[in-house]
Amino acid sequence: MTKSKKIAVVLSGCGVYDGAEIHESVFALWAIASAGASYDIYAPDVQQHHVINHLNGQEMPEKRNVLIEAARIARGDIQPVSELNATKADAILFPGGFGVAKNLCSFAVDGADCQVNPELEKVVKDFHQAGKPIGALCISPVLITKVLGNPEVTIGSDADTAKAIEEMGGKHVNTSHAEVVVDATNKIVSTPCYMLDANILQIADGAKKAVDTLIKML
Amino acid sequence: MTKSKKIAVVLSGCGVYDGAEIHESVFALWAIASAGASYDIYAPDVQQHHVINHLNGQEMPEKRNVLIEAARIARGDIQPVSELNATKADAILFPGGFGVAKNLCSFAVDGADCQVNPELEKVVKDFHQAGKPIGALCISPVLITKVLGNPEVTIGSDADTAKAIEEMGGKHVNTSHAEVVVDATNKIVSTPCYMLDANILQIADGAKKAVDTLIKML
Repeated sequence: MTKSKKIAVVLSGCGVYDGAEIHESVFALWAIASAGASYDIYAPDVQQHHVINHLNGQEMPEKRNVLIEAARIARGDIQPVSELNATKADAILFPGGFGVAKNLCSFAVDGADCQVNPELEKVVKDFHQAGKPIGALCISPVLITKVLGNPEVTIGSDADTAKAIEEMGGKHVNTSHAEVVVDATNKIVSTPCYMLDANILQIADGAKKAVDTLIKML
Repeated sequence: MTKSKKIAVVLSGCGVYDGAEIHESVFALWAIASAGASYDIYAPDVQQHHVINHLNGQEMPEKRNVLIEAARIARGDIQPVSELNATKADAILFPGGFGVAKNLCSFAVDGADCQVNPELEKVVKDFHQAGKPIGALCISPVLITKVLGNPEVTIGSDADTAKAIEEMGGKHVNTSHAEVVVDATNKIVSTPCYMLDANILQIADGAKKAVDTLIKML
């Protein structure tokens, strides 16, 4: 690579059930660095939809902020997503976790009728209109589909989520572990990660293949 | 390997400044799986020493539980450390993060005079007396030294921490990125990880070398 490419990574908290999936997030950063590119990390400065006790799956009676919690994964090196636009990076990447469907948009509650956080909607449209590639791991293709309308993506093989993607105007392709779907027209790369019942090596493989594919589009 | 080896991984929360360092924890799990071994994850069921806002470094006026927060890294698949003894695994591994020095022992406050959580003290002694290897990333060699008294370890090259290890009876060896120190007598493997100013690739390398060395001792 002649010049190091920069990838903006957008997190949705810290923990699979109410935020960004931690393994997917860490392997996404690792895959970017492994490819010789660099990253900046962003998250929206908004309250989490709720807080889930990850030991028992129950909701906890407290409030947490998405940016402050995502800073745990970023070791403090993170910026509010309001600072992000398409001039800041060569591509944008969304790890998964329920935070995407609870904090970045309301898919977990509203399905195909979900609302997208306005800052996120603006950022996704900005990268798309600038012709810069978008990477979407795990559940995050639902966000991209809601914003862009007609991409071709994968979330693995979950029938209900695939159906919702089609209802929003997208085309869903069933995939297995570490398989990547490329929408060349819209420059979108997606892979299922933990939307399938996966082990940690499959997550590392999926993140690496998606990131390598994304970087090849630059 | 004829039979898959089991490594017990002990976490101290979720986030470098008040819990387990997330990258070190994820790469430790990945390294174990990469080596063809398996892992069970444990954490003490105790309140965190405090909660740090990872965006600004300030203490937050709230309380969190180490086991419940560590469950975020473990995706819920975690047990209280009270369930762990040397019959449950072939080796034990401690990722780093300030949680080791704040929640598993009081090193961050008391230095060489620190107290160790009694459950952790019992578990470390049990693995040691059973002749089973102990892996210690980042700051966690201070915990091992306090419990065992005279091991040879590394935390990188931080002079104050190295001095405290010597005061507790240990021998400290200065190391650089992804270098591993092996105490063959006590069966202890250590590597500095983020105790040095490191990037994410160096953390993955360090965790992999430490875990591979640990597994070769089995």
